[in-house]
Amino acid sequence: MSERDEIRSELRESLQRVTELLQKHELVESLVHRQEGPRHDLVESIVHKANLAELQRLLEPLHPADIADILESLPVKQRLMVWDLVKAERDGEILLEVTDAVRETLIAHMDEQELVAAAEQLDTDEIADLAPDLPREVIQDVFRSLSPEEREQLREALSYPEDTVGALMDFDMISIRDDVTIEVILRYLRRLDELPDHTDQLFVVDRTGVFKGLLAVNRLLVTDPDTTVADVMQPAAARLRPQQKAQEAANAFERYDLVSAPVVDDAGELIGRVTVNTVVDYIREETDNDMLSAGGLSEDEDLFASVWKSVRNRWTWLAVNLVTAFIASRVIGLFEDSIARLVALAALMPIVAGISGNSGNQTITLIVRALALGQITATSARKLFAKEIGVSAVNGLIWGGVVGIFAYLIYRNWQLGIVMTGAMALSLLLAAVMGVAIPLVMQRLGRDPAIGASVMITAITDSGGFFIFLGLATVFLV
Amino acid sequence: MSERDEIRSELRESLQRVTELLQKHELVESLVHRQEGPRHDLVESIVHKANLAELQRLLEPLHPADIADILESLPVKQRLMVWDLVKAERDGEILLEVTDAVRETLIAHMDEQELVAAAEQLDTDEIADLAPDLPREVIQDVFRSLSPEEREQLREALSYPEDTVGALMDFDMISIRDDVTIEVILRYLRRLDELPDHTDQLFVVDRTGVFKGLLAVNRLLVTDPDTTVADVMQPAAARLRPQQKAQEAANAFERYDLVSAPVVDDAGELIGRVTVNTVVDYIREETDNDMLSAGGLSEDEDLFASVWKSVRNRWTWLAVNLVTAFIASRVIGLFEDSIARLVALAALMPIVAGISGNSGNQTITLIVRALALGQITATSARKLFAKEIGVSAVNGLIWGGVVGIFAYLIYRNWQLGIVMTGAMALSLLLAAVMGVAIPLVMQRLGRDPAIGASVMITAITDSGGFFIFLGLATVFLV
Repeated sequence: MSERDEIRSELRESLQRVTELLQKHELVESLVHRQEGPRHDLVESIVHKANLAELQRLLEPLHPADIADILESLPVKQRLMVWDLVKAERDGEILLEVTDAVRETLIAHMDEQELVAAAEQLDTDEIADLAPDLPREVIQDVFRSLSPEEREQLREALSYPEDTVGALMDFDMISIRDDVTIEVILRYLRRLDELPDHTDQLFVVDRTGVFKGLLAVNRLLVTDPDTTVADVMQPAAARLRPQQKAQEAANAFERYDLVSAPVVDDAGELIGRVTVNTVVDYIREETDNDMLSAGGLSEDEDLFASVWKSVRNRWTWLAVNLVTAFIASRVIGLFEDSIARLVALAALMPIVAGISGNSGNQTITLIVRALALGQITATSARKLFAKEIGVSAVNGLIWGGVVGIFAYLIYRNWQLGIVMTGAMALSLLLAAVMGVAIPLVMQRLGRDPAIGASVMITAITDSGGFFIFLGLATVFLV
Repeated sequence: MSERDEIRSELRESLQRVTELLQKHELVESLVHRQEGPRHDLVESIVHKANLAELQRLLEPLHPADIADILESLPVKQRLMVWDLVKAERDGEILLEVTDAVRETLIAHMDEQELVAAAEQLDTDEIADLAPDLPREVIQDVFRSLSPEEREQLREALSYPEDTVGALMDFDMISIRDDVTIEVILRYLRRLDELPDHTDQLFVVDRTGVFKGLLAVNRLLVTDPDTTVADVMQPAAARLRPQQKAQEAANAFERYDLVSAPVVDDAGELIGRVTVNTVVDYIREETDNDMLSAGGLSEDEDLFASVWKSVRNRWTWLAVNLVTAFIASRVIGLFEDSIARLVALAALMPIVAGISGNSGNQTITLIVRALALGQITATSARKLFAKEIGVSAVNGLIWGGVVGIFAYLIYRNWQLGIVMTGAMALSLLLAAVMGVAIPLVMQRLGRDPAIGASVMITAITDSGGFFIFLGLATVFLV
């Protein structure tokens, strides 16, 4: 993320230009509407057309991904104006590129016929990606327009849930038999107008369609044409299954530097392939989702969504937060007598809770990451507990000492300083133990530790920090 | 991230097996050491060898990336034991795959000769990646062993800072002239044993080395051999410059679905290429770094780093947090009289600060993301302020009402409930305004809004929330 703010300067210029044109357009509209008289309509339509034509010229040469970006950056009204100017043949591709939230606004603006036309421009695996957002009648219409083979592919693609290899898969692979010569293959390829995108290798299958191996396209160029395929084909570094998690495919691509990989079913038959561009998109989307869910947003939010929609998107997290805040508040409530007697406690208690929450979150971050990478075994878990407890002990001494001195300097009460130091050390210990334990337990229970672990540790360090500090103070000071 | 916990089951099995063997090894060692007598050495060496040989057999067929993963997952002592068993020819590749923190531990364990041997197995661009971690003498030795052309490449690769295209670049491209026929190209390629990895296209240059266009390898297969290169070559979708931010290259690969892209200097000369596998690694690493820095860890931490090293890695964030906590504590200190008179304030104040902090972080997450994607213009910034203020008003009514009722139910004091509701609404408004303003101002000042914005909003909502709530209470209740 760290440099994204400098990126896409060219694109920002296009965006700037589009916005200017749209503003000019709106300005003219408002001027024209103030004039009355017979020339009104004529003036309006001429100025409009000139502006819109310029806008269209600007959009024409842009890549669908770039247009998608511009659409996402515009408030809804202007977005739909631009959307109407985009050549209909590109609708499908652009719909694939925009975020789910923005796609919704675009689709709501299109009629059934336009949607069917947009979907029909796409490959079956792409139609499957759009399908959840399309009205049922549109899907039925599209389905009817497909060949039997394509229908089978669409059914296949729709049958796998999001986040599986099946959902990333496409059917654009070239499969060949292993008993022919390279020359035959070369002749066969030459008959095609062009090879599918990302064809870095051909997929070798036997007579029954069972996957046998891979033949790199580059090998075709350097191999004696009389060789048979069987002699030069290679085993697959990764052989994916459609029901596998998409994340596993992403890992395989990352580790083994793949451009494409075969997808086989349980019988070993080749049913599709995954390509690196899909994987890159998947990784980016996952990253985005992680960022959003870390912020407590349940899904991607259209930047220009209505207030009401945004409120709903965010309310779950706030509600959870409210409950944990109420609990922490009741913990403090238990010690109201102590606070009434020594009001300094009220000012000092957020320090203990805040710093141990911070430290606990650092531990969680490391453990969640290590779990995600599969790096934690039963033996190493014990070592991690020991290490984090060690870190919290050192931090407890250092930071506990600092806050103790702070408390003494402000309130000139050395007992208060000592209680503060002790509370800090104990809270950091609690944070360390829970920071390791929470993700491990969540993992053991089959939950994703990346989601919710941070809320839990904060809830525990808040209530725990208040309890430890006020409890110690009640015992030793009040 | 969300499914990574299910991944790499095969790899986990290898890891489990390695750990078991290492434990057996340690067990035998401790048993043997307890025995005394002449047979001691013999027994030890036989059992050792059997164990280590089995371990080596296990490691042999693994991909360097998989071995890197096992090394990262082992405590330092066992890690070095496994590292010694890895065939020396693979050292270089494995060093490239491990994280920086783990690489440090491995390099510290190798002597100069081993390091030179490891580096010499690598391409110049890969040597450049390792260089920051290698002792100066090793680099000089390696440099001497290179050909003049390779030295030039290494110098070039070392001259670009991390996070630039120059650092991602390699020199493994095949460049061709545009005035020859496809047949000549095919004959030329056939003389090579194999093409470099990720050669999806050949780079067309003129006589002086100036980049002219691209010829897709797949086109070679379907084009009439008598055609000249100039007739079938295509312009580059993205032409990178070595000093560009790496993030821009990653975006180009994502948007235009690239497998490789040319890197040209200011004179237009082709100097290298970037391939998709490097880009995937870069994206993954960036994601990791974002996650770590969001948790306040200044760099990647070896899971089994020493306590002291970990403390240093984490201390900056805790120190910053301490300062903001002290400030919040002093804000509360201003109102100690009010709290002494109405102690319920102490129990209720963290609710206001906590929920507005949460809400502010949600806003920040959205704005930082939109800024990163370049989606915010001057006009849309105004709309975003309006939207977030609207959201905070709705949330203020809803959540403010809930906490007001909560306060009333606990303390049976309706004025306290009303103050609570008002404070909640005002704090949420503050959070919304600052949540939009902080990232925009940071961006304007040329800072990365992804780093630090979250700490700032939390500091503001903490101190601000306490001030608003205690202030209102002092004015209306006490």
